[in-house]
Amino acid sequence: MVNNYYIQANDNPELTAERKNCTFDTQKLAALYYGSKEKLDKRRKFDEFIKKLPEFQNEKSSIFMSRLERFDENSKKSVAFFDHFLTEVDTSDPNEVAMFYEKFFSYDGSPIALHLFVFLPNILNSMAGEQQQYWLNLAMNKQIIGTYSQTEMGHGTNLRKLETTATYDKETDSFIINSPTITSTKWWPGNLGKTCNVTIVVAQLYIDGKCYGPHSFMVQIRNFDNHKPLPGITIGDIGPKFAFANVDNGFVRFNNVKIPREHMFMKYAKVEKGGKYIKPLHDKTAYGSMIFVRSIMLLQQAQYLAMACTVAIRYSCVRRQGELEDKSEEVKVLDYQTQQYRIFPQLAKAWAFSAAGKYIMELFNKVNKDLTSGNADLLPQLHCLTSGLKSVISFQAGLGIEQCRMSCGGHGYSHASGLPNIYATQIGGCTYEGENMVMLQQCARYLMKIAAAVKERKNEMKGDKLFGYYFKNYHNNKCNTILEMLEAISYNKTMDVYDRLNKLKASGMSHELAWNNCAVDLCQAAKAHVSVFLCLIYNEFVNKLNDPGVKNVLGLLKDLWEKYELLHLSSSALKYNLINGKDLDKIKISLYDDLTKIRPQAVSIVDSFDFTDRDMITVLGRRDGNVYDNLLKWAQSSELNQYEVLPSHKKYLLPMTKSHEKSKL
Amino acid sequence: MVNNYYIQANDNPELTAERKNCTFDTQKLAALYYGSKEKLDKRRKFDEFIKKLPEFQNEKSSIFMSRLERFDENSKKSVAFFDHFLTEVDTSDPNEVAMFYEKFFSYDGSPIALHLFVFLPNILNSMAGEQQQYWLNLAMNKQIIGTYSQTEMGHGTNLRKLETTATYDKETDSFIINSPTITSTKWWPGNLGKTCNVTIVVAQLYIDGKCYGPHSFMVQIRNFDNHKPLPGITIGDIGPKFAFANVDNGFVRFNNVKIPREHMFMKYAKVEKGGKYIKPLHDKTAYGSMIFVRSIMLLQQAQYLAMACTVAIRYSCVRRQGELEDKSEEVKVLDYQTQQYRIFPQLAKAWAFSAAGKYIMELFNKVNKDLTSGNADLLPQLHCLTSGLKSVISFQAGLGIEQCRMSCGGHGYSHASGLPNIYATQIGGCTYEGENMVMLQQCARYLMKIAAAVKERKNEMKGDKLFGYYFKNYHNNKCNTILEMLEAISYNKTMDVYDRLNKLKASGMSHELAWNNCAVDLCQAAKAHVSVFLCLIYNEFVNKLNDPGVKNVLGLLKDLWEKYELLHLSSSALKYNLINGKDLDKIKISLYDDLTKIRPQAVSIVDSFDFTDRDMITVLGRRDGNVYDNLLKWAQSSELNQYEVLPSHKKYLLPMTKSHEKSKL
Repeated sequence: MVNNYYIQANDNPELTAERKNCTFDTQKLAALYYGSKEKLDKRRKFDEFIKKLPEFQNEKSSIFMSRLERFDENSKKSVAFFDHFLTEVDTSDPNEVAMFYEKFFSYDGSPIALHLFVFLPNILNSMAGEQQQYWLNLAMNKQIIGTYSQTEMGHGTNLRKLETTATYDKETDSFIINSPTITSTKWWPGNLGKTCNVTIVVAQLYIDGKCYGPHSFMVQIRNFDNHKPLPGITIGDIGPKFAFANVDNGFVRFNNVKIPREHMFMKYAKVEKGGKYIKPLHDKTAYGSMIFVRSIMLLQQAQYLAMACTVAIRYSCVRRQGELEDKSEEVKVLDYQTQQYRIFPQLAKAWAFSAAGKYIMELFNKVNKDLTSGNADLLPQLHCLTSGLKSVISFQAGLGIEQCRMSCGGHGYSHASGLPNIYATQIGGCTYEGENMVMLQQCARYLMKIAAAVKERKNEMKGDKLFGYYFKNYHNNKCNTILEMLEAISYNKTMDVYDRLNKLKASGMSHELAWNNCAVDLCQAAKAHVSVFLCLIYNEFVNKLNDPGVKNVLGLLKDLWEKYELLHLSSSALKYNLINGKDLDKIKISLYDDLTKIRPQAVSIVDSFDFTDRDMITVLGRRDGNVYDNLLKWAQSSELNQYEVLPSHKKYLLPMTKSHEKSKL
Repeated sequence: MVNNYYIQANDNPELTAERKNCTFDTQKLAALYYGSKEKLDKRRKFDEFIKKLPEFQNEKSSIFMSRLERFDENSKKSVAFFDHFLTEVDTSDPNEVAMFYEKFFSYDGSPIALHLFVFLPNILNSMAGEQQQYWLNLAMNKQIIGTYSQTEMGHGTNLRKLETTATYDKETDSFIINSPTITSTKWWPGNLGKTCNVTIVVAQLYIDGKCYGPHSFMVQIRNFDNHKPLPGITIGDIGPKFAFANVDNGFVRFNNVKIPREHMFMKYAKVEKGGKYIKPLHDKTAYGSMIFVRSIMLLQQAQYLAMACTVAIRYSCVRRQGELEDKSEEVKVLDYQTQQYRIFPQLAKAWAFSAAGKYIMELFNKVNKDLTSGNADLLPQLHCLTSGLKSVISFQAGLGIEQCRMSCGGHGYSHASGLPNIYATQIGGCTYEGENMVMLQQCARYLMKIAAAVKERKNEMKGDKLFGYYFKNYHNNKCNTILEMLEAISYNKTMDVYDRLNKLKASGMSHELAWNNCAVDLCQAAKAHVSVFLCLIYNEFVNKLNDPGVKNVLGLLKDLWEKYELLHLSSSALKYNLINGKDLDKIKISLYDDLTKIRPQAVSIVDSFDFTDRDMITVLGRRDGNVYDNLLKWAQSSELNQYEVLPSHKKYLLPMTKSHEKSKL
């Protein structure tokens, strides 16, 4: 019986041998990862479809390209994307849109990312009626490519302090968009620099000298006929970044640019002709889109980590180095405990994060439905939780990817592994969509509310799983499971920092200063709470599984995750007397045992992520395991090797070395 | 009285205000960092000298260049380097050579790095007499540029398994260098790909069918007249990496390339005409060069971290975001506890690592002197210790740099900050010169010897500070200082894993498997031992200081480091009953206090690293603090902004958006 469906002829026998160990059905695990067999099949269908398109023949590795070449390549693909998008994709399913997009552009960014995933959703969610229809038509006719310009050079996190202004001009019934300072320059918006011809601009709304805070406006930035920047607009690319070389993150400055009043986004707040301001009915909508973006982020972050695990685990079964007992042959490096300890917890995390992402996405859809019926109770909680999750997951995914990369030794440092770029791309997630330290404190803010409720013996906590169920039930430090220990750690950390915060305030310190004094502890309480949530969701996720083979391997990963997490928090476990050192050692030893149980399944588990080599942009993590000869081929096709002797060498160093008569060697 | 000498007119007043808080003499701290006032002055003199050279006028940011452009730029500078090297530099002082080199090429790599820092030292150390003179002459006449080719595609760490062969051919009295497999391809040597015309090759020496293990051979790889690869030699660049775009890390394959017998390095082992092999007198020499390279690495790693701290701290005093008590003005982000907690421990580490690097460098010089008088006793210990230090410091520096980078928010992700490149460059240190997990186990190997000696109540430990002094003295778990707690943790971790290792062996497991079973714990014991060493050296370093101002700030950093380190190891401290939770909390609170004490000195401390903006390749960390307008200028000069409309846009997306008649907007 073959359980692993990734075996092919002419594969590296080292990987085939690994795959023959498989105890579960990789098709089933893959379907679980993508949500269902149908989704997995659709994803594979897209892969087949795209591979046949003319734009995808003889693809050159983007890592060898200048940014100009990358834009040439991806603009071409963008046109192809729009050509096939409406016929091939059910555009009402965001998941399908994302899958189709990913197969086109991999994780490497594109000129149309913001248009698809931020600009269009904003039109759908924050415009209504005629206004919406107007812009939607332009988009559907492919006449506009748009983005969303919020962040400024001087302000990201503190939106209230954005400096761009939109001043209502009664005489012409229009808004004047202006960038009053250098720091007010819009900075970072994806695809703003070179690609988009319109953008949503978030600006402080001024009417009759009064500021109404940040609002959204649609602004045309480039001429539709020749794509040149319109008068009053200074625009460009912000220059190279850690990753995302395919994306023209841009800057724009407005020198009193006039737009019609109707270009303000008017589904919620409105400005009437003459300047009358109509307040929005409720202000929860901002939460909604933030939660949506973050739940997508969780799945993305899990995916980056899963890719890194795939590369590291496959390569670790190809690479042989050093000996154990048998001196006749070097061992696969994955047989070393240190290698397993570096990589397998990351694999366990990839599944934990993916399960959390799936859960939050489902919950968001439910909460969003409630919202239309006027019930927004769970929104703030969900927002706080996703803030914490976003922070913890993005940070841990980064650490994990780097462990995977380093576990590949020197080759992990080469772009041939794909890992440097996976890391550099992923790690942006610690910063965008809310800086992590700020996010943790948002999560902590809610924890402090719960702590107050506990202290006052109130019982006002809603949304069991989201927050606080264990604060209600908490009785003593007797813990029977790791979940209970994590709960106790979170509970104690939260109550400790709550007490310290209040002590400082009681001593006369302002709330702001006291909070700042406790900020590091508040962040750590938030992290502990996220641990509880992950543990809970991971357990639920595994418990619900039916297939014994799949349940068995994911159960192994879940066990490993729990133990690793507890050891990570062992200082708190000891401090709060939840466990003693001896029992902690037992858990550690049993974690080492888990590693050896996962070892024979490792390749099959990562195979089941169903990533193609192209998805991961990797040579080192190739499915077929034929690594070394392809490394050489890859290198030989790289930039510098287009010259037998570099022009610069002929110009400078060769004349120098030839300036003396050579001795005969 | 002005203590901070980095204040200039037209600086950002935010930084000037910070600098006016300075309580110590920045000149003195800078002199301490570089070793002496003379060295600091020499470094500044080099900076002035180079800035005036024609090759350094109107430098373009390397981050905007293709690799070909980078090679053009750096080849030009390499010729200038050789032009001035002998007249400007005392070449007998490796420190001065390095300083001069750094001012030419920053940390960004060059075509001549390996020639200067690996190739020439190898000729000096592993050749003698006529042979040495011959190659040295060629080098001094700038006729050869060389490198050192050891690592192969399939083998790095396990040198015994290198596959390249050097077979003695009696008939022609020569060696035949050959690459028998794909995996035997030499892979990674710096400057091998395009620049060098000769290389040292490490190959298995075969005489009459017998293998004598790896030896070094000098091999010409390119024609001296036209720089083309010689017959039988396939050579090229290995392609792009995480960083080091300026370096042509290369590959080379030898197809039975014949070299004269005399091109074997013959200071130690020798092959006589006819094929008689003469064994080297002793085999400790390999240790020497490894220790030397690693002690340089420690200083380099400290420097990368110091640079990241400089950028992060300066920018954190320019950036204002959010409010505390005073609502009239946003606060400098460095006033947030979370920001201080992210950055200041990194600053404390930079100094810890630098102190350790200085100590090891001095000790190495001493030990090296002993060596010439035949005393090699300390060498194995020193080798093990530097293995551990290299591993811990490179890993922690990486984490620290990323914390600094993330603390700069979005701008930290831009190459304008310099931080992505500092990280990507630094983090290679976890892999090169010995993969970190292997390094830690080398360190642990020695710890196991000490543990055995303790168990057998032997007293055979030498070199007090290097190893084991606290194993000798260890009595109970009563600890009065953090140093003593770190000692106790290291002692207990070592003895625990020693016991487990022996229990496994007693149960019938082979040494190799038992070791592998304990490998993670062995690594952690090694890390704990490195903590003790760092703590000891840091204390010594601070205690020796005379200047009260300097001593005060470095004392603050040392205190912070100790507390941070103990909290990092607090799980062990609790497990071994060295401290209770309450006292641990007190240490934590006192750490938070330390942060606020360091806060007003932070800018002045990093100023004293005396890095120029050019050294750090940064806009965000500029000395003058004029960040925002320069960010804009930097962006505007970047690659994509050379076109108002990208050629690719005209080609693909503009025709698409224009394909429909536009509605009037």
